[in-house]
Amino acid sequence: MARTTAMERLGRRIRLGVIGGGGEALIGPVHRIAARLDDGFEIVAGILSSDAARSRASAEALRIPRAYPDMAAMVAGEAARADGIDAVAIMTPNDTHADFAEQALAAGWDVLCEKPLANDSGSGRRLAAAVRESGRVFCLAHNYSGYAMVREARAAIAAGEIGRVHLVQVTYLQGSLGARVEDHPERMPARMKWRLDPGKGGPSHVLGDIGTHAHQLATYVLGTPVEAVLADVGAVVPGRSAHDTASVVLRMQGGARGMLLASKAASGAENRILIEAYGEAGGLRWEQANPTQLFVMRPNAPAEVRSAGLPTLHPLARRASRLPPGHPEAFLEAFANLYRDFAELVAARIAGAEPDPLAAHIPTVADGVAGLAFIDACLSSSESGTWAACRES
Amino acid sequence: MARTTAMERLGRRIRLGVIGGGGEALIGPVHRIAARLDDGFEIVAGILSSDAARSRASAEALRIPRAYPDMAAMVAGEAARADGIDAVAIMTPNDTHADFAEQALAAGWDVLCEKPLANDSGSGRRLAAAVRESGRVFCLAHNYSGYAMVREARAAIAAGEIGRVHLVQVTYLQGSLGARVEDHPERMPARMKWRLDPGKGGPSHVLGDIGTHAHQLATYVLGTPVEAVLADVGAVVPGRSAHDTASVVLRMQGGARGMLLASKAASGAENRILIEAYGEAGGLRWEQANPTQLFVMRPNAPAEVRSAGLPTLHPLARRASRLPPGHPEAFLEAFANLYRDFAELVAARIAGAEPDPLAAHIPTVADGVAGLAFIDACLSSSESGTWAACRES
Amino acid sequence: MARTTAMERLGRRIRLGVIGGGGEALIGPVHRIAARLDDGFEIVAGILSSDAARSRASAEALRIPRAYPDMAAMVAGEAARADGIDAVAIMTPNDTHADFAEQALAAGWDVLCEKPLANDSGSGRRLAAAVRESGRVFCLAHNYSGYAMVREARAAIAAGEIGRVHLVQVTYLQGSLGARVEDHPERMPARMKWRLDPGKGGPSHVLGDIGTHAHQLATYVLGTPVEAVLADVGAVVPGRSAHDTASVVLRMQGGARGMLLASKAASGAENRILIEAYGEAGGLRWEQANPTQLFVMRPNAPAEVRSAGLPTLHPLARRASRLPPGHPEAFLEAFANLYRDFAELVAARIAGAEPDPLAAHIPTVADGVAGLAFIDACLSSSESGTWAACRES
Amino acid sequence: MARTTAMERLGRRIRLGVIGGGGEALIGPVHRIAARLDDGFEIVAGILSSDAARSRASAEALRIPRAYPDMAAMVAGEAARADGIDAVAIMTPNDTHADFAEQALAAGWDVLCEKPLANDSGSGRRLAAAVRESGRVFCLAHNYSGYAMVREARAAIAAGEIGRVHLVQVTYLQGSLGARVEDHPERMPARMKWRLDPGKGGPSHVLGDIGTHAHQLATYVLGTPVEAVLADVGAVVPGRSAHDTASVVLRMQGGARGMLLASKAASGAENRILIEAYGEAGGLRWEQANPTQLFVMRPNAPAEVRSAGLPTLHPLARRASRLPPGHPEAFLEAFANLYRDFAELVAARIAGAEPDPLAAHIPTVADGVAGLAFIDACLSSSESGTWAACRES
Repeated sequence: MARTTAMERLGRRIRLGVIGGGGEALIGPVHRIAARLDDGFEIVAGILSSDAARSRASAEALRIPRAYPDMAAMVAGEAARADGIDAVAIMTPNDTHADFAEQALAAGWDVLCEKPLANDSGSGRRLAAAVRESGRVFCLAHNYSGYAMVREARAAIAAGEIGRVHLVQVTYLQGSLGARVEDHPERMPARMKWRLDPGKGGPSHVLGDIGTHAHQLATYVLGTPVEAVLADVGAVVPGRSAHDTASVVLRMQGGARGMLLASKAASGAENRILIEAYGEAGGLRWEQANPTQLFVMRPNAPAEVRSAGLPTLHPLARRASRLPPGHPEAFLEAFANLYRDFAELVAARIAGAEPDPLAAHIPTVADGVAGLAFIDACLSSSESGTWAACRES
Repeated sequence: MARTTAMERLGRRIRLGVIGGGGEALIGPVHRIAARLDDGFEIVAGILSSDAARSRASAEALRIPRAYPDMAAMVAGEAARADGIDAVAIMTPNDTHADFAEQALAAGWDVLCEKPLANDSGSGRRLAAAVRESGRVFCLAHNYSGYAMVREARAAIAAGEIGRVHLVQVTYLQGSLGARVEDHPERMPARMKWRLDPGKGGPSHVLGDIGTHAHQLATYVLGTPVEAVLADVGAVVPGRSAHDTASVVLRMQGGARGMLLASKAASGAENRILIEAYGEAGGLRWEQANPTQLFVMRPNAPAEVRSAGLPTLHPLARRASRLPPGHPEAFLEAFANLYRDFAELVAARIAGAEPDPLAAHIPTVADGVAGLAFIDACLSSSESGTWAACRES
Repeated sequence: MARTTAMERLGRRIRLGVIGGGGEALIGPVHRIAARLDDGFEIVAGILSSDAARSRASAEALRIPRAYPDMAAMVAGEAARADGIDAVAIMTPNDTHADFAEQALAAGWDVLCEKPLANDSGSGRRLAAAVRESGRVFCLAHNYSGYAMVREARAAIAAGEIGRVHLVQVTYLQGSLGARVEDHPERMPARMKWRLDPGKGGPSHVLGDIGTHAHQLATYVLGTPVEAVLADVGAVVPGRSAHDTASVVLRMQGGARGMLLASKAASGAENRILIEAYGEAGGLRWEQANPTQLFVMRPNAPAEVRSAGLPTLHPLARRASRLPPGHPEAFLEAFANLYRDFAELVAARIAGAEPDPLAAHIPTVADGVAGLAFIDACLSSSESGTWAACRES
Repeated sequence: MARTTAMERLGRRIRLGVIGGGGEALIGPVHRIAARLDDGFEIVAGILSSDAARSRASAEALRIPRAYPDMAAMVAGEAARADGIDAVAIMTPNDTHADFAEQALAAGWDVLCEKPLANDSGSGRRLAAAVRESGRVFCLAHNYSGYAMVREARAAIAAGEIGRVHLVQVTYLQGSLGARVEDHPERMPARMKWRLDPGKGGPSHVLGDIGTHAHQLATYVLGTPVEAVLADVGAVVPGRSAHDTASVVLRMQGGARGMLLASKAASGAENRILIEAYGEAGGLRWEQANPTQLFVMRPNAPAEVRSAGLPTLHPLARRASRLPPGHPEAFLEAFANLYRDFAELVAARIAGAEPDPLAAHIPTVADGVAGLAFIDACLSSSESGTWAACRES
C-alpha cells in the first residue's frame, strides 16, 4: 500500500514489556511469536515470575534484556530509561488482568491484555474507565477476530451483503474436560489448575475461558451486542463443580436470534470453532478448522468460497493476509494481526500520527466489558431458569 | 446374509396403497422411489386426490392400478379383493395424518406415515393407542434415521463406544423462509401454503416441519428421550406470524445436555443437518452433506472416519448399505431403508415369521408421540420464558 | 416440465430382460435398482445362469417372471409373445458383452451394456457397426457420466464457461488389489477371479475395469477424444501378472494435455474418482466422494460451489436431479440416470416420437470403441516406452 | 523437551545476512518472518540491491543494521567484525543461487538457499562439492517439507506403517499462467518476468518453479529417489514459449510407480498441492489446503485422521508443531520449521555440540542436485518421447 502508516512514521519497533508467560503455559510463546512475526515489536522487559531470580532466569532463556519481579519494579526501572517500554502485554491468570492493566495505564503504557478482561464486571468497568481516562490503546486478546476471513465476514455483514442478520449460531468446543481430570490432580498442568479455581479463573470456567471468545466472535462478526440470553450453564460431567458447558439462546440487538454453545467437555474435539449467520439475502459460514475460507451462501444459487488473500476481499480482510490464496495462514498469523494493529495504534499515539483506520477493528476494553456482562447474564439466567438481559453498566 | 428374513419367507412383494403424493409435492415421488428401490413393494392402489377423476388420472399417470377418492372407498374396494393391499403409506398434509392412519389400522393395514404424527398431542396419543391395539406395524417417516451412518452412530453409542453421552448438538437449517415469501403468495408452491397455515401445518411450522426431525435424530442417536427444554420459538423474519426458528436448550434423560437449532430462515442453507454427541471417552459427528462418513473422535488421538459399507461397522449400519465404501448412497437410499425395514416387519406379521431384529430400529408411533410432546414443551417454554418438561402422557 | 416426453407418449414401462447379475456380484442388484428407481422399466425376463434350473431359481428369487438359460431360448421365448421384451441389460463377464449385444440387436432389442464394450478393439468395432445397422439404442454403462454434477461440468465446458480446456487430470483409485490377493485364491470372490483372468477380463485388468471409466469421464466432460498417450501400465505389486496400475500422460484433441492415473493397488482408497479441468478462464473440479457439488474456479476471484438441484444449473444437470439441493443423490441415482435416459430413447423408438434431446447425453457404443482404442494405445505405449496414438478404426 | 539442544548450548541467536528479498517479491518477507518466528535469528546484514544506496534504503526500511551492495563487500565487512554473520539466506533470482552460495561457503558461512539450487546440473554438482568441502550447513528452501504432517507422512512410511510404497501421486497446480499474461508485459510483476526468462529462471519455468517442489515432496515423503521418468513438458497455453505444464510418469527407487503433475496454467487453482502414497498395508493422503491433517487409509477399515499437535504423532512431526490440535499452523510455520532446524544445525557447528538429530530432516544440497537431475530427465524424456533416467552425477 502506498499510504504511510503510523508505524512507518514512527520509524522504529514498539518496545514491549511482557507480564506473565514465563512458565510452561502455551500462551507465553504464542504472544511472543505474534509480537515478533511482523517485526513491529522488540520485547525488552518482562515480569516472568514474582520471584526475582526466576524472572531473571526466564528472561535470560528467552533473551529478554530486562527482568523484573513485579510491576512496581518494572515501572521504576523503565521510567528511568530513555528507551523504556512503550507498551505491555499481559498474559497472567485471569484474576490479575485488571490490576496489571490499570498499573500499566497509570505508567503511561499501552496495553494488550489476555481475555477475560477481569473476573467480575465491576473490575471490568473500572478498567474501562481507566482506559478512557488514560488515552492509551487497549487491545483485548480475542485472537479469533484476527483471522482474515472472520474480518471478511464482519465487513460483508457491515456492507449489507446478506441483508439484516436475523439468525446466528456460534459453537466453541474443546475436549480438555471431557473426562474427570479432577480425579488425577497430579496429572493436571498448572494452567488447568488455576483456571478451574474460581478465585483465579473466574466464576464460570467455560464462560471465562472460551464462552467469551464465542461471544466476542458473534458480536464482532454481526457488529451488534447481545441483548438477552436464556442459558443453561454448569457441569455435564458428573461430580464436577467447575462449569464445563454453557448452552445459550441469544437475542441480539437489531433482532438477530440464535444460539451459542461452548463446552470444554467435548472429548476429542480439537478447539472446534464455527460461526454462521443468516440474513434475508444470504448466509455466511466460517470455521477455524478451515480458516482461510469463508462460505457465502445465496438463496437458490451457488455458494461462493472466498479465500484469504484474494484481491476481491474487503480491505479489512485483505489487510489481514500476508500471502496470496493457497498459502494458508492460521492461528499464529491471526494472533499476530492483533499485534500488528496494536502496534499501528500505539505508533500513531507516540508519533502523533493518524493510524490506518483499519487497525481500529481490534477487540478493545469494550469487548471485555460486554463479555463480562454476557457472563453475568448467562449465570443469572441459568440460576433463575429464565431470560436475563446483558447489562454493561 | 445366510439367515432367512421374513420377506423371503413371505415370497412376494408387499401390496401398498398410497394416500397423497399426487400433486406437485416432492414427497410423493420420494416415497414411491423409496418403496420401489429394494423391490419390496408393489404400489397397487392410491388416493391421489379427493376428486375421483383426478385421483384416477393421477394414478394412471403413475401406473398405479386402482384409484380411490377417499378412505371409505379404498377400504371397501380393497377388502373386496383377495389381493387387496397389505399396507398404506400416508403423505398428506399434517392435519390428516392421524385420521388416515387410524382408519388404515382399523382396516387391518400396516402404516408408514409422514411426520409429524399429528398436529396435537392428544391426537398423537390416541393414534398410539390405536397402533398398540391393532397389532399392526407403524413406521413414522423420520427418514434421516435411515442413513447407514446415523445408525452407526446409534449403535456406537449403544455399545458404549464414547461412554455415557453428556453433550449433544443438533442443527437443522433450511432457507426456504429466509425472506418474506408471504409477500408474494402467488409465487408460493401449494405445499408451502398449507404448511404455513396453522390449521393444516400445525401450531409451529418450524417445529412440525423440521424441528421434529432434529428432535428424533437426537433421541435416535443417543437412545434417550428429551426431558426438558428451554426454548425460544418464533419468527426471526419481521412481520411473519408463522414460526420460522426454534432455539432450544436440551436436557436429556441420562444427563446429556446441549442444544437444538432448527430454522427455515437460514437463507442459502441447503437442508443442512448436523449432529454431534460427546461422552467421556470420545465424540461422534455426522452431517447430511457428507452422509457416508461418521467421524469418531478420541481424546488426544487421531479421529476415525467410518465409511458406509465397511465390514467393520456395527450390523445395524452394515444392513443399511447396499454398496461397498466409495459407492455413495444418500437421501433416497436412507428413505428406502425405512421402507425396507417396514417391509420386513409387515412380512413377518403376514407370514407369522420372526423379522430380522435389526428391522426394528425404524422410527415408530412412539417417536411421533415424543415429537409432539417436544413441540408442546418448546411452545410452553417459549411462552413462559422458562423450562418446560416433555410430557408424553 | 410441460413438454411431453417419449416415455409419456409410450404410456407404459419398457419391458426389460436382464442378462447376467444372478450371482453374488454387486453389479446385478445395482442394475436392477437403477432400472426400478424411476419406474421406467419392468424386468420381465432374465438369463441369470447358463444352467436352466439355476436361472429359474434365481429369477424366482428376484421375482422375474420368465427365466432362460441362454440367448437362443430368450429370443425364441420372447418373440413368441405379444408382450415380449423391448430391451436387454447385459451385466456378464467382459468377454461375452459383444456377443450378447449383437444377438440382442439382431433380435430387435435395444441394449444397455456393462463396460468395457469388449475385450478387443475388433469386436468393439464390429459391435459398433451392428448398432449402426440395427437402428437400436445402445447405452454403455459408464455410470459416472450419470452424475448430475458431471453433466454440469460437461455442459459448463460446452458452454465455454472456462474457455478452451488446456489441462485435465483424472484419477481413479481402488484398493482391492493393494496386497497380493492372488496368494489366497480361496478368499477371492468369483467376480475378482474372472476379472483377473485375461481371457475373460481382458488384456489389462486395470484399464478394462476402471481405466475405461476414467477415460470416458475425461472425454465426456471435455467433449473431446484422447489423441495420444504416453503410458506405463503394469503391476506395482510384486509378483503379479495382471495389470493393477496405469499411469498415462494424455494429449486430447483440441489441445488439452494432462494425466490419467488408474490403480487398483491403492490400499484403503474407497473408489476414489476425481476430475479437474482448466481453461483460460477458469477451472472445474469434481470428486465422487462429494458427488453433489461442482467447484468452479476463477482466476483471482472466489470459487463457486454448484450444488445438484439448483435452478441455476444447466438443463442437462437439472434433468439429472430428482431432489432440491441439500437432499443428496449419489451412485445409484447416477446409475439410474442412464436407465432413465435409455428408457426415453427406447420409448421414442417404439412410439415413433422425438425423445427429449437431453436424453442423448448417455455413453454409447462410440464411447466403448474409444475406450478400447485407448486401452490399445496405452498398452502399445507402455510396451514401446513412447507415444501411441488412439486409433478408433 | 528436557534435552538440551545446540541452540540452548550456543545461548544466542544466529546472526544472519540476507541476500535478496528487497523488492516487491513475496519471498523476502516470507523468509524474514520465518527467520524471526522462533527467535533463532537476528537479521543483521543484507544485500538488498546491487545498488548501494538502494540496498541501504531497503535495509533501513526493514531495520537491518548493515547493508551491502554485493558479496565482496559483505564478506569484507562482516569478516572485520567480532560479531559478523554466521550464516546467509539467499533469495535472489534462480541463476544467481549457486554463485552466491559458493561465495558464502567460502566465507565460512552456513547457507539457507531458495530453490532451485541452480539453473543447470553442472552448477548444482559443483555447489554440492563445495558444501561437502566446506563442512558448512546447507538448507534448500523446499518449504513444503517443513509441514508437520508432511513429516508425519515421511516418518510413517519410514516406520513401515503402510508397507513398501508401490504407488505415488503428487500434484502441484497454480493458475498464474492460466491465460496469456505475456500479452500484457506491462502488467507482469518483476518476479514473473525474470522467472519466465530462461536465462534467469532456468530452462523450464514450471519444472524449476514448482516441479522441483513436487519432486522433492515425493522423494521426501517416500524416502527414495526418482529413478526414471516419462514426461511431457511444455506450454499448454497456445503461443507461449515458456513451459507451463509438466506431466510426468514416475518410477522410483524401491519400485514405486506413479505420477507427478505440475502446472502453472491451472486457472483459479490456489497453489494446490497434494500427495498420496500407497503400499501393501495402506495409504496416506495430504493436501496443503488442509495442512494440519494427514489421512491414513487402511484396507477394509476406517481411515484415521492425524492432526498436527497430537501426542501420538511421530517425534519428527511432533517437533514441527508449536501448538496443540485445533490451533492450526500453516505455510509460514512450515517455512519457519526449516529455519528452526537450520538454526539448530548451525548452532551445533558453532558450539561444537551435537544437534537434535530430528533437525537433520531438512532438505539439503542433495535434494537440489536430485531436483536438477529430475529436470534434466524430464526435459530429455519430453524431447525424445521416451523414458529418461535421473542421473545425479
